[in-house]
Amino acid sequence: MKYYEKTIHSEEIFEGKIINVRLDDVLLVNGKTSKREIVHHNGGVAILPMLTENKIFLVRQFRKPIESELIELPAGKLENNEDPVKCALRELEEEIGYKAGKIEKISSIYTSPGFADEIIHIFVASELSKTTINRDEDEFMDILELDIKEAVKMIHDGRIVDAKTIVGILSYISK
Amino acid sequence: MKYYEKTIHSEEIFEGKIINVRLDDVLLVNGKTSKREIVHHNGGVAILPMLTENKIFLVRQFRKPIESELIELPAGKLENNEDPVKCALRELEEEIGYKAGKIEKISSIYTSPGFADEIIHIFVASELSKTTINRDEDEFMDILELDIKEAVKMIHDGRIVDAKTIVGILSYISK
Repeated sequence: MKYYEKTIHSEEIFEGKIINVRLDDVLLVNGKTSKREIVHHNGGVAILPMLTENKIFLVRQFRKPIESELIELPAGKLENNEDPVKCALRELEEEIGYKAGKIEKISSIYTSPGFADEIIHIFVASELSKTTINRDEDEFMDILELDIKEAVKMIHDGRIVDAKTIVGILSYISK
Repeated sequence: MKYYEKTIHSEEIFEGKIINVRLDDVLLVNGKTSKREIVHHNGGVAILPMLTENKIFLVRQFRKPIESELIELPAGKLENNEDPVKCALRELEEEIGYKAGKIEKISSIYTSPGFADEIIHIFVASELSKTTINRDEDEFMDILELDIKEAVKMIHDGRIVDAKTIVGILSYISK
């Protein structure tokens, strides 16, 4: 890689349950050094659940970092070495209470590559059948059922502002 | 807000140049408490530069967190209280060497609201005229000039995987 930055020193700053933080000294292509603040996240999945050809489910939940509620695709974190498809099916069932007969990856995105390694794999789930909601005990959300055209409108007028949700919906309709 | 999480304790973990990290104890709606690992970032801008009606510029640069090069919109961090429009015009000039006669916001996105407060304001810049590139001394990148239809294809086949870049391009073509 033309502009590869070699790590010459790496300092662990924080080891959390969701993220680890480290501070790397790197060697740049011009021979100088610089510091890189890096958040490690295990990655996650997000699911666009198609109830019919036009109807989708989204969830609305409180997000502490921004002190606000957001409308998002159902989503969840990957456990170590977990298969993203398995994780997506599990999260869909846990968060909105539906099993999917069909699931297809539509995109994988890096959310904040300037400071974080988080990757989110986005799936379209269809052939849905009702089962039981089974959320984590610190997880609270409302389920929204809406027309995908309405969701696109909500992207364009700023009611949907979550990156993975916008990527999932606009990738789906532009295919 | 229905599911608001009140902060009952907040511990500073790390104060960097790009991010701060803190660990919050929060009170959930069910009366229990939980921990939230939170990355503060000042936010940023990204710019979709339209050279003509169909031609856009993107940049390719190395991203240390993922140890790989990515194709992205030109982008940059907001300085404290900086006007996003001013920041977008500055970054466009610094990174690819063009002034914009016209600039319009197309979207504002939260990139990783599960653990970070980063918001990116995305602009479409047009009426471009050439000026001088003036990058930060630790910033290296190639400029790509390509057809927007080709960029959409690169999103769908996985050559473009950066969230803000996908949101910018697909928001523009779906308007």
